[in-house]
Amino acid sequence: MSHLDSQGNAVMVDIGGKPSTQRRACAAGRIRMSAACYALLREGGVPKGDVLAVARVAGMMAAKKTSGLIPLCHPLMLTKLTVDFLWHDEACAVEVRCAAECAGQTGVEMEALTGASVALLTVYDMCKAVDKAMVISDLRLLEKHGGKSGDFDAEAAHA
Amino acid sequence: MSHLDSQGNAVMVDIGGKPSTQRRACAAGRIRMSAACYALLREGGVPKGDVLAVARVAGMMAAKKTSGLIPLCHPLMLTKLTVDFLWHDEACAVEVRCAAECAGQTGVEMEALTGASVALLTVYDMCKAVDKAMVISDLRLLEKHGGKSGDFDAEAAHA
Amino acid sequence: MSHLDSQGNAVMVDIGGKPSTQRRACAAGRIRMSAACYALLREGGVPKGDVLAVARVAGMMAAKKTSGLIPLCHPLMLTKLTVDFLWHDEACAVEVRCAAECAGQTGVEMEALTGASVALLTVYDMCKAVDKAMVISDLRLLEKHGGKSGDFDAEAAHA
Amino acid sequence: MSHLDSQGNAVMVDIGGKPSTQRRACAAGRIRMSAACYALLREGGVPKGDVLAVARVAGMMAAKKTSGLIPLCHPLMLTKLTVDFLWHDEACAVEVRCAAECAGQTGVEMEALTGASVALLTVYDMCKAVDKAMVISDLRLLEKHGGKSGDFDAEAAHA
Amino acid sequence: MSHLDSQGNAVMVDIGGKPSTQRRACAAGRIRMSAACYALLREGGVPKGDVLAVARVAGMMAAKKTSGLIPLCHPLMLTKLTVDFLWHDEACAVEVRCAAECAGQTGVEMEALTGASVALLTVYDMCKAVDKAMVISDLRLLEKHGGKSGDFDAEAAHA
Amino acid sequence: MSHLDSQGNAVMVDIGGKPSTQRRACAAGRIRMSAACYALLREGGVPKGDVLAVARVAGMMAAKKTSGLIPLCHPLMLTKLTVDFLWHDEACAVEVRCAAECAGQTGVEMEALTGASVALLTVYDMCKAVDKAMVISDLRLLEKHGGKSGDFDAEAAHA
Repeated sequence: MSHLDSQGNAVMVDIGGKPSTQRRACAAGRIRMSAACYALLREGGVPKGDVLAVARVAGMMAAKKTSGLIPLCHPLMLTKLTVDFLWHDEACAVEVRCAAECAGQTGVEMEALTGASVALLTVYDMCKAVDKAMVISDLRLLEKHGGKSGDFDAEAAHA
Repeated sequence: MSHLDSQGNAVMVDIGGKPSTQRRACAAGRIRMSAACYALLREGGVPKGDVLAVARVAGMMAAKKTSGLIPLCHPLMLTKLTVDFLWHDEACAVEVRCAAECAGQTGVEMEALTGASVALLTVYDMCKAVDKAMVISDLRLLEKHGGKSGDFDAEAAHA
Repeated sequence: MSHLDSQGNAVMVDIGGKPSTQRRACAAGRIRMSAACYALLREGGVPKGDVLAVARVAGMMAAKKTSGLIPLCHPLMLTKLTVDFLWHDEACAVEVRCAAECAGQTGVEMEALTGASVALLTVYDMCKAVDKAMVISDLRLLEKHGGKSGDFDAEAAHA
Repeated sequence: MSHLDSQGNAVMVDIGGKPSTQRRACAAGRIRMSAACYALLREGGVPKGDVLAVARVAGMMAAKKTSGLIPLCHPLMLTKLTVDFLWHDEACAVEVRCAAECAGQTGVEMEALTGASVALLTVYDMCKAVDKAMVISDLRLLEKHGGKSGDFDAEAAHA
Repeated sequence: MSHLDSQGNAVMVDIGGKPSTQRRACAAGRIRMSAACYALLREGGVPKGDVLAVARVAGMMAAKKTSGLIPLCHPLMLTKLTVDFLWHDEACAVEVRCAAECAGQTGVEMEALTGASVALLTVYDMCKAVDKAMVISDLRLLEKHGGKSGDFDAEAAHA
Repeated sequence: MSHLDSQGNAVMVDIGGKPSTQRRACAAGRIRMSAACYALLREGGVPKGDVLAVARVAGMMAAKKTSGLIPLCHPLMLTKLTVDFLWHDEACAVEVRCAAECAGQTGVEMEALTGASVALLTVYDMCKAVDKAMVISDLRLLEKHGGKSGDFDAEAAHA
């Protein structure tokens, strides 16, 4: 565990000697809700777009704050950030995908995961008057590129 | 959806006319990991406590920042906050529970969910050198007390 | 100038002895742009709503951060917050109105002004690829209610 | 509008492929006030300097927070930042100029505008006990240098 | 140690059952510097006031951020905040005093200490080009009033 | 004083023309407490580790926020950060050492000092129920490497 020194104390890993390379990561997660809540969000009288527009902004702003939220994350300068949504009608679930990129000495996995996570929490917040039993799940890294540890692809990892 | 006005625009709900009452909420979530990663975290040579100590602090600090992360959340003043962990050996999963309280005009569900969420992300961050395929799931409100909408209990909701 | 002590040093005014009353303030401002940019924003092929949706979220999140931005502002807990937009076709301008409320010992004028200001800056940011010569103007307090200094109405003040 | 994807959703523009160049921007704005308030600020018994000293600090700190305030702004590392004031006696107005520089893949226009904006809001806050009808106006980009879109000069743009 | 539960884990102490009372705290600290640096700050050609004006603003803004910096601090709403400076010519030291007040269920000691601490760090930052060997010392609580634990007076404590 | 322009106004120093070099700084400070409090922290029934674990996290998170706390500090991207503790039994004091590194155009002295300072304040916060008369002292730069102004070593400076 590279975040712990030899006595088990937390440290911010030294990345000073690592080369700066192009980094990319994509994370996803989903929020399942009641059929009624899903229908309201998906097709209801209120413009569904706005809930997702707010969640998208929240996710992007949170991704930029990652090093302020996760104690041992290095600060870095994102060069690209997107938050997208997918509808899963059969599961009454909305999926969030957050992709982040930067050129730097450390990866952007935590930025992608944090952006997805806060976008999902924002959907919860905006729909909780209708359904408090919503569940966030499957929040995971989909893929990661760049850096010494090589590429990661969740499909391959789970195969 | 009380977060949207009649044209579907996002608004921060008016809570000015609501009485101030004692509010309490508890949220939970879990992170599943490989057996090797779980063993390292649970019983390995490195003092496992510190990962959870860092995650606990991260969760508590994030819960206090909730209204800065979730766009339509009201600011409020937490009077109590705890973050606890449970080991699930069979599932190779660590469960986080975050409980929050305040006296106010709105509930603390989002604070509890945000605290649990960031604690889980911190566990991911500190263990990702060992396992990048960890999955965060089952992030949900366990219970909520106080306020006009009454109590919520996830057990009852899912029964 | 109540923000300066007898030697002219900055102080956060003591509001400890003031009663807590219901406070409300509304601020407005506008951003003028080229006819081409305005048309694109107002009627163009891209969904114009999203620029304003992002600006609305930005304004609301900034209003909540007011005491972290304006050095001598007291922290307070907003109970209501709205950001709205008005189209001024003849002037090729978008007007932002931000209204804030709380129950407290000090007013919410700065929250309303900060929310309007950051919403306008966000419109600038999202349109600046089309027009860098946009101008923000007429940022002012429209009205204020509650508190010892009484009500303020910009119409009356300018009459 | 480069901040919107083909479906009109907000994205943080990909700047990963842009070269890092020296960037500079200068923004200005002004706050008009009553003759009495202006006189107090300009020549009154209280040391006028301190209001502007506080506003200067507020503007600089806000400029550094720009990417945390404006949703689609990229984080960047300012290498220079100044906030200056000009007196306009005839108009009873104080003008703020904020200049920012960095070496990077994106411009610093929003940093300059945000710095000027928050400095003006701080002047409002510190003088509002005397005059609540103050108006902030003429907040605009004065000039911008560096980057693919070339230089911008407000004088030329308005000629 | 009330910040630790029975297993030694960190918790934010439950203050929900405590009455809201008027709280006041004052903290102080000092920064010692070389005679040359002190003279420059105290009487030099540059307007010394501005260093302290900047440090005063920094201290006040930091005091408002205390619960975001100190993990187990409760958020609270300061109603008064002052940062003052005293010259100690014989010791070539500048003393900072920060006083904070609020009405609430917990004390403002950490706010006063944080404000003093960041004001001192800011003096260090602004003078470090002249003297890097400055030392911050004697940072302590001077007095505290209100709350169940009663009043505290550093003079009495050290007598 | 490079933080002041020719009129004595605060400016963020222009570092745009400076080369990017490897920077390192280490700061230290200590907190003295009563023998009873020290014993409780050092050897008591409660797991002493957790107080320091929380203080370590607080110090690291604060170091990352330095440019948001110290008005004229440049933002920079830390590549390494450690917070360590030393016991001084004879003095009933805990010493904090914070070391920071980055590659950049300006030094990391303020990051190291801020990290040490907030770690010490956190120890105060967690122990203040036992001893309110604790004193923070000897907060200073131990060493600094890299940059035009050359290396600094506190031992040499005080010799």
